[in-house]
Amino acid sequence: MNQFLNSLEIGAQGQCTLPQEFYRSQELFERELRHLFLDRWICVGHSDNLREPGTFLNLKLGSESILLIRDHHLKLHANFNVCRHRGTRLTEAPCGKLGKTIQCPYHAWTYQLDGTLAGVPDEKEIAGFCKADYGLHRAKVHEIGGLIWLHAGREVGDFDSRYTGILSRFQPWQLANLKFGSHREYHVKANWKLILQNYSECYHCAPVHPRLVELSSPTSGGNDLVEGPVMGGYMDLRGNAQSMTCSGHKCGEFISGLDSQQQQRVYYYVFFPNMLLSLHPDYVMIHWLTPVTFDQTRIDCRWYFPTATLATQTNSIEDAVEFWDQTNREDWQVSELTQLGVASSRYTPGPYSNREAMSAALDRYYLQQLAAANLESPQ
Amino acid sequence: MNQFLNSLEIGAQGQCTLPQEFYRSQELFERELRHLFLDRWICVGHSDNLREPGTFLNLKLGSESILLIRDHHLKLHANFNVCRHRGTRLTEAPCGKLGKTIQCPYHAWTYQLDGTLAGVPDEKEIAGFCKADYGLHRAKVHEIGGLIWLHAGREVGDFDSRYTGILSRFQPWQLANLKFGSHREYHVKANWKLILQNYSECYHCAPVHPRLVELSSPTSGGNDLVEGPVMGGYMDLRGNAQSMTCSGHKCGEFISGLDSQQQQRVYYYVFFPNMLLSLHPDYVMIHWLTPVTFDQTRIDCRWYFPTATLATQTNSIEDAVEFWDQTNREDWQVSELTQLGVASSRYTPGPYSNREAMSAALDRYYLQQLAAANLESPQ
Amino acid sequence: MNQFLNSLEIGAQGQCTLPQEFYRSQELFERELRHLFLDRWICVGHSDNLREPGTFLNLKLGSESILLIRDHHLKLHANFNVCRHRGTRLTEAPCGKLGKTIQCPYHAWTYQLDGTLAGVPDEKEIAGFCKADYGLHRAKVHEIGGLIWLHAGREVGDFDSRYTGILSRFQPWQLANLKFGSHREYHVKANWKLILQNYSECYHCAPVHPRLVELSSPTSGGNDLVEGPVMGGYMDLRGNAQSMTCSGHKCGEFISGLDSQQQQRVYYYVFFPNMLLSLHPDYVMIHWLTPVTFDQTRIDCRWYFPTATLATQTNSIEDAVEFWDQTNREDWQVSELTQLGVASSRYTPGPYSNREAMSAALDRYYLQQLAAANLESPQ
Repeated sequence: MNQFLNSLEIGAQGQCTLPQEFYRSQELFERELRHLFLDRWICVGHSDNLREPGTFLNLKLGSESILLIRDHHLKLHANFNVCRHRGTRLTEAPCGKLGKTIQCPYHAWTYQLDGTLAGVPDEKEIAGFCKADYGLHRAKVHEIGGLIWLHAGREVGDFDSRYTGILSRFQPWQLANLKFGSHREYHVKANWKLILQNYSECYHCAPVHPRLVELSSPTSGGNDLVEGPVMGGYMDLRGNAQSMTCSGHKCGEFISGLDSQQQQRVYYYVFFPNMLLSLHPDYVMIHWLTPVTFDQTRIDCRWYFPTATLATQTNSIEDAVEFWDQTNREDWQVSELTQLGVASSRYTPGPYSNREAMSAALDRYYLQQLAAANLESPQ
Repeated sequence: MNQFLNSLEIGAQGQCTLPQEFYRSQELFERELRHLFLDRWICVGHSDNLREPGTFLNLKLGSESILLIRDHHLKLHANFNVCRHRGTRLTEAPCGKLGKTIQCPYHAWTYQLDGTLAGVPDEKEIAGFCKADYGLHRAKVHEIGGLIWLHAGREVGDFDSRYTGILSRFQPWQLANLKFGSHREYHVKANWKLILQNYSECYHCAPVHPRLVELSSPTSGGNDLVEGPVMGGYMDLRGNAQSMTCSGHKCGEFISGLDSQQQQRVYYYVFFPNMLLSLHPDYVMIHWLTPVTFDQTRIDCRWYFPTATLATQTNSIEDAVEFWDQTNREDWQVSELTQLGVASSRYTPGPYSNREAMSAALDRYYLQQLAAANLESPQ
Repeated sequence: MNQFLNSLEIGAQGQCTLPQEFYRSQELFERELRHLFLDRWICVGHSDNLREPGTFLNLKLGSESILLIRDHHLKLHANFNVCRHRGTRLTEAPCGKLGKTIQCPYHAWTYQLDGTLAGVPDEKEIAGFCKADYGLHRAKVHEIGGLIWLHAGREVGDFDSRYTGILSRFQPWQLANLKFGSHREYHVKANWKLILQNYSECYHCAPVHPRLVELSSPTSGGNDLVEGPVMGGYMDLRGNAQSMTCSGHKCGEFISGLDSQQQQRVYYYVFFPNMLLSLHPDYVMIHWLTPVTFDQTRIDCRWYFPTATLATQTNSIEDAVEFWDQTNREDWQVSELTQLGVASSRYTPGPYSNREAMSAALDRYYLQQLAAANLESPQ
C-alpha cells in the first residue's frame, strides 16, 4: 500500500491522475470497501424510501447485507442480515414491509425489529442458551434532514459532527419534505473513483453532453466546498433554462424557500465516497454508488420532488428523469473507456487541468483517508 | 489449515457451527476435493444406470473426468478419461453406449473397455513405443448390492470393509433389484457441507417444509447410525400417510421383504461426503452431490422403484418425484441463504440445538477426516 | 519458471508433449503475453484490410489496445489507444475510418494520425503544459509484401531481418496483390499452443477431417522450414482435386506466377506465435490467434483472393470458406477436448510420433524463446 501513497505528490501544483494500481488492485479494493465504505459514516438513503412502520431496505456491500428497518414507533434500526443460529440471511428482498418481527426462514428464529432475539423454537434443546446473547449484530444508523446515514464498523461513536454543519447549507431544499418520484439503476464497468472524478468536473461537458451545455454553461459557477468529505459547487442555468430537463422547463413549481439565486443554479456535491447530491430549483437527484469489483460499480439514481409536483403533474417528472438518464449514460460510457485505458502498460498519470480542480481535490482527499485508515489498522 | 482445526472443540457439549473459512476458502476446497472425494471410496451410482454391456457413465469432479464402463462380460471398469498420447478426453458425453472399444477422437488411439491400449495408427512411427505401457490410467471400482463405488486415489486397497457391514442393514430394500424411474438435476449456490447439514436435521422442517410435516412428524423417529462414514436414522409416517408423496399414497406396492415397521418409516442416511440415501416403503431416492466451487454444488437426485411399480403404474411415480422436487427446492433455498449469510464479517459460529445433533456429528466426522488427511499428506 | 524448462529434454529423440503447467499456469500465461506476443515482431494483419487513408484497426491483446492507422499519405502508424490526459481509450471500435485526426471522446484532446497531440481544449489551464510531451505512446510497425508487422515492446530495433529472408519464399503468391474476400471469427476453449500443435501435424487428419483427406493425402508432402520463427511445409493435392474446397474445384484462376508444382500443392506455415499461413493454388487463408486466457483463444480466420476471382465469381469463394470453416471447427473440437484432458491429475506428457515432428519442433522453439526471454528479463 505504502508504495501507492508515496508515489503521489499530494496537492502539488500540476497534480496528475492516480496510478494504474488504484483502478486494478484487488487488495486495494478490499481495503477501500472495509475502511472507506463500511468503517465510516456514509449516507445510504432518503427517508421517503423508508417511511412507513415495518418497512426495510436491504443494503448490500461486498459480502455484507444490512437491514435498515423502520420500527412501529418510527425509529430506525440497522441490523446485520445474519441469523445468529446458522448464519442464514433472513431475507434477500431488496426492500419490503415487515409485521412486528422478522423471522429466519430456516429454523424460525424470530427477532424484534430492533434486532433483539424474541423467540427460538424448542429453545430448551440448546444447551446453556440465553436469548439475550443472540440478538442480531447491529450497525449504527442516524437520520437527519431526510437523509439516512449508516456506520457499519465495529467501534463507532456518534454521528460525525462535521456532517451536521455541512448539511445545514442544504436546508433551503427541504430534503426531508421531498417525495420519491422515480429511479434508474445502472451497472457500470468502471472503478467507483472514476465515477466520482467524472461527476466533479465539467471540462468534459462540451464533448460528452451536448444537451447539458445548452442548459448550463460548463464554465459557469464556482466551487464552494473545496475540501473535506463533501465537495462541490454550483453552475448557472442559462437564460432560456428553468432547470435541467429535456425541455428546459421546470417539472413543477420551485421548491419553496429557495431564494432567487438558488432558483437559477444547480448545485452538485460529492458526499465521499458513495453519494452524489444534485440540487435543482424544482427537484433533487441523488446517485448512490456501490462498488462491486475494482472495475464495476452499481449505481442507483433517484429523483425527489415536492409533493405538489408529484400530485398534480406526474408526467412532467419524466422531463427531468429522461434528461439525466441520457446524461448518466454519456458519463458511464467515458468512464468505462477510461477503466479500459488505464489498464494498459503504457498508461501513466496524466495532468489535471485547472478545470478539473475538484477531481484533483477528491483524489487528494481519497489518499488522505486511505493513509489515515492505514495508520489506524495496518495490515 | 491447522488453525481451522484447532478453532473447534470437537464433540464438546454445545457444539457450534463451523467458522466462515470452511465455506469460503479456495485452498480448503481444493484439499477437500482431493482428500475427501477423490482419495477415498465413495458411492457414485446405482447399478441400474449402468446395466447393459458397453454402457458408460462420465463422472466429473474438479478437473477430473473418469469413465465408468460396463464391459461385454458385464464387468465394471473405471478409466481416467485422458488419452495417453496427447491428453485428449475421449468423450464429453455424460453417458452413452460403446462397442468393443473406445477411440480417441483426435488421433484414433483405441482402447479396450478395460483401458488396455489396443491400437495406434502408424505405431511404428513412435520411437521405442510399447503399447503395454500406455493403457488408460485406472481407478478402482467396486459394485455391491446395487451400488457402484469408486476410489480415484493413487494408492488404494480393496473396498473399505467398514461399508460392507453397514450396507447389510439396507438389504431389506433390495437396492440391486430396484429400477431407475426418474431424476432431477439441481445447481445449488451453496457449499456441499451445507447440503449435508441440512439433510441431517428436521429442526427446519416445520418452517421450511409445510407439506412434509403433514406426512411425517419432525420430532418422530430416531438416529440409529450416529458416527462413522454413514450416519442417519428414521422418521415415522403419520397414520394418514403411506409414503412421502404429494398425495400421501404409496406409488405402488411396498418393496417386498420390508417388515411392518419398515413399511411405516422413512430412513435417511448421509454417506459421507457425497450421497444421501432415502429409503421409503415403496421406493428409494438417492442424491449425489458434486462440489463445483466452494459456494456451488451440483446435485443429481434419482428415484428407484420396484419393477412392478414402473411396469404397471408409471404415472404414480410422479407422485413421489414431485413431492421431493418441491421439498428439495425448499432445502436449496435456505442453504443458499446460509451460504450468503456466513460470508458476512459478523457471522460467528452459532449454537446447534439437540435437534441438530446429527448435523453436529457430521461436522465432527468431517473435521476428523480432514485432520487425518492432513497427517497423511501434509502440505 | 525454471522448473518448467528443466523438466523437458529439448530435442531428444522420443520427445513428449508439454507438461500440464504449460496449459494451466496463470503466471506463465502472463509471461507469454508479454514476452512472446508484445515484446516481439509479430504479423498482425494483411495490407488489404487497411488500405484506404484514415482507416484503422484496433488490435487488442491482454489489457493492451493498439491502433494501427493508415494516414493520408498512406503511411502506417501504431499508437497505444490510451489518451495521455486521463488514460481513456480513444475508441472501442474494432476498425473504422478517421478524418484528419482522432479525438478522445472524454475531454476532446485531439491527436494527429501519427499520434502527435494536436489540440487540447483550454490548454492554458494546465500548469506548465507542453503539447509535444504528450503524444500517444507508439509501437513499431512494418509493412512488407502485403503483411503488417507490429512490435509493441519498449525497446525495439528495426524489423527482424530474419523475416525478410523467409518472406521472400512466399513471393510467388503475391500476397500484396491479393484482396480480402471473407472472414470467420472463432472463440476456442483451448490454450493457444494447442492450436499451433494441431495445425502442425496431419496425423489427426484421417480421424478428424474425412473431407480433407479426400482432397489431400495426410502422408503426402514434406516440411521445408523445420526450425526458427516460421515452420511448415506442403501437402500434395490428389489428382481429383484442384484446391481445398467443398467441391474440390478451384475458386477462380490460379494465382498468376505459380509454377506447375505450386499449382498442385498446399503450403502450411506457422508464424510463431500467432499466425497460420495457408497458401493454396487459387487463394490464401490466414489465421490470427489472440490468447484470451490460458484456456481460451480467439481466432480470426481470413481468406484472400486474386482480384479477378472476387470480381467475376463472387459466389465461388464460399466453396473455399465453407470447406475450411468446417475443417476449423473439427480442429477446435479436438483442441478443446485436449485442453480439458491435460487438466487431469493423471495427464502426463505423451509420446509424439514422427508424424507429429513439426508439433514437437514447435514445442522446442517455444521453449527456447521462453528461456531466452527469461534470461533477458528475469522475474
